Amino acid sequence: MSNSQDFTVTPWEVKGEVDYDKLVREFGTQLLTEELLGRIKKHTGDIHLFLRRKIFFSHRDLDWILDRYEAGEKFFLYTGRGPSGHTHVGHLVPWIFTRHLQEKFGAELYFQMTDDEKFLHDEKMSLKESMGYTYENALDVIACGFEPGKTFIFSDVEYGKTLYKMAVEIAKHITYSTAKAVFGFEDSTNVGMIFFPCIQAVPCFLPSILKSKNMPCLIPAAIDQDPYWRGIARFVAPKLGFYKPAQIHSKFMPGLARGGKMSASDPKSAIFTVDPPEMAEEKVMSSYTGGRATVAEQRRLGGQAEICPVYHYYHFLFEEDEKELAKIYHDCKSGALLCGDCKANLAGKVRRFLTEHQRKRESARKKLDKFIIRD
Amino acid sequence: MSNSQDFTVTPWEVKGEVDYDKLVREFGTQLLTEELLGRIKKHTGDIHLFLRRKIFFSHRDLDWILDRYEAGEKFFLYTGRGPSGHTHVGHLVPWIFTRHLQEKFGAELYFQMTDDEKFLHDEKMSLKESMGYTYENALDVIACGFEPGKTFIFSDVEYGKTLYKMAVEIAKHITYSTAKAVFGFEDSTNVGMIFFPCIQAVPCFLPSILKSKNMPCLIPAAIDQDPYWRGIARFVAPKLGFYKPAQIHSKFMPGLARGGKMSASDPKSAIFTVDPPEMAEEKVMSSYTGGRATVAEQRRLGGQAEICPVYHYYHFLFEEDEKELAKIYHDCKSGALLCGDCKANLAGKVRRFLTEHQRKRESARKKLDKFIIRD
Repeated sequence: MSNSQDFTVTPWEVKGEVDYDKLVREFGTQLLTEELLGRIKKHTGDIHLFLRRKIFFSHRDLDWILDRYEAGEKFFLYTGRGPSGHTHVGHLVPWIFTRHLQEKFGAELYFQMTDDEKFLHDEKMSLKESMGYTYENALDVIACGFEPGKTFIFSDVEYGKTLYKMAVEIAKHITYSTAKAVFGFEDSTNVGMIFFPCIQAVPCFLPSILKSKNMPCLIPAAIDQDPYWRGIARFVAPKLGFYKPAQIHSKFMPGLARGGKMSASDPKSAIFTVDPPEMAEEKVMSSYTGGRATVAEQRRLGGQAEICPVYHYYHFLFEEDEKELAKIYHDCKSGALLCGDCKANLAGKVRRFLTEHQRKRESARKKLDKFIIRD
Repeated sequence: MSNSQDFTVTPWEVKGEVDYDKLVREFGTQLLTEELLGRIKKHTGDIHLFLRRKIFFSHRDLDWILDRYEAGEKFFLYTGRGPSGHTHVGHLVPWIFTRHLQEKFGAELYFQMTDDEKFLHDEKMSLKESMGYTYENALDVIACGFEPGKTFIFSDVEYGKTLYKMAVEIAKHITYSTAKAVFGFEDSTNVGMIFFPCIQAVPCFLPSILKSKNMPCLIPAAIDQDPYWRGIARFVAPKLGFYKPAQIHSKFMPGLARGGKMSASDPKSAIFTVDPPEMAEEKVMSSYTGGRATVAEQRRLGGQAEICPVYHYYHFLFEEDEKELAKIYHDCKSGALLCGDCKANLAGKVRRFLTEHQRKRESARKKLDKFIIRD
């Protein structure tokens, strides 16, 4: 948990301008080095866009996972989603990367939907609601192209027998003071939230239990989830005789509002995968940008790509070509590219992306049974 | 929880000479009145031994349960067992009474085996071990004569999907400070124990959920379990739209050691249902008693039945006839009955009881499937 003056990053809240270098120091993770990227490239053939652009930028024990892999020991992937609402395009970033890892390393994926957590955390949310989003969000996961038979998606509630049994084994080693130190729990925290980190730790060890064989685990996830693994799963692993899970961390994709915020109370600040493509186009067209007050000023001073959500959308997800991305940046900074044109270009890309994603998402409905595991 | 200078009663520990009147005042329960016993008798035809002898002595809302019943609304029974070891004869007291209530009121019984709690609470116990005792203890429950089809026994771990789902609904309303106040949790308490009271509260509402209809619940149990229902289930019931569970409380059957203690470290202090009958006879014969130092002294002063575990064994379970019990008491106090003869008489009764119980217990093995529910 980081809670400095300028920004906050906890598993439940990310706000302010995140200083990722500071976060890495505070969390005690490692930056991805060129050497490590070189080792990955040996197995993947190329360096994924998200690594090249440092969208995935930090890790724990990734070198160890590669050691194990090179010694012939397969790892599995574990990531998840807190189903508090519809999926937005920012959520897809770690999933697309996870899909890439699955393909290149032939890895199984355990995908956890923490409908219990979202219900426990949000005063206004019913359990029925968060469980409903589990299945809505699962369609987006499947639409990312994961392999059936190697991909296991589960609702915490619907897989509760398996998870609770393992969670009590973990919980026996976690005192309240440990949990409080990691998550900042208070006297007013409900006891469900206090136990929940043990449920979230289970999938790190689940395949090892199911297959009665210790298996290395790699977790690709946004860095805000790090406290779960650092404070619980990695702490308890040696006590239970399991490997500590390794991690690879992504940055947060900004929203379309001022300051790069995505706000639940402002649905215009994020593009949801269920948005009609025309609505998404409109959201892009009315996005905050790094542009100047007038055209004349922009021609003279150039735009501010660094603080522009539109530019960040290209950077994260909507312009894969490095040369094209560099051209957008250059033309923005030089004043040659005005925000209206830049947004119109992005809007078209977003529309095409969504149309295609929604086609896959719909076809995922009939495949759900191939992916969902439950008790 | 009561933790005075003279005695301690918590859900996990009972020690010292329990002052039941004080406990009732501290817990805020009601003593069973003659009037209430009269109302019960209208439905049961006679007054059960355990009520007559005030072994069941206290309650919450029993009058309300009878109101509902007399208005045509059936209640269900809920009790349970922490499977930390083999069943001893003291455990049978509330079960025998629960069986009586089932028969007289035609009530369904939900019987919870808290194998999660016993694992979480006892540092040395494995989950496999406590789950093993779940099934061993279930044989003793069934041997008490419960009705198949109306009796549902479950392991918390094996019924974890159903229980966890409902427990998070409860947990959302229980803050850490509430749980701490009820159970005396400390920073060193593990987070599994902190969440567990929500699992123990679930059966109070389970039939109401399973049948989609609010059903009154009556819990017959030893009074040490009261904090679970008072602090959690009764607190949360109105928030979730359920009836508060009613309770009827028993005293603790003493052990055979000095001061009426049953001690896990001294297996001679309790008679287990799996003890070979000859071993049980020996335990009775070497019991502590309220006898005097010499025969001459006993003839002169009489024995001390009040503090004698042997007398308490007759009182609780092994002498149903009031006249016979009164005769034992009188002959002890007058010095006519010496401890050796008194113990030999009890030993014979215990042997016959155990032989019969063990026969029923063995025949329960093939009936387990008719009683156990799991996810």
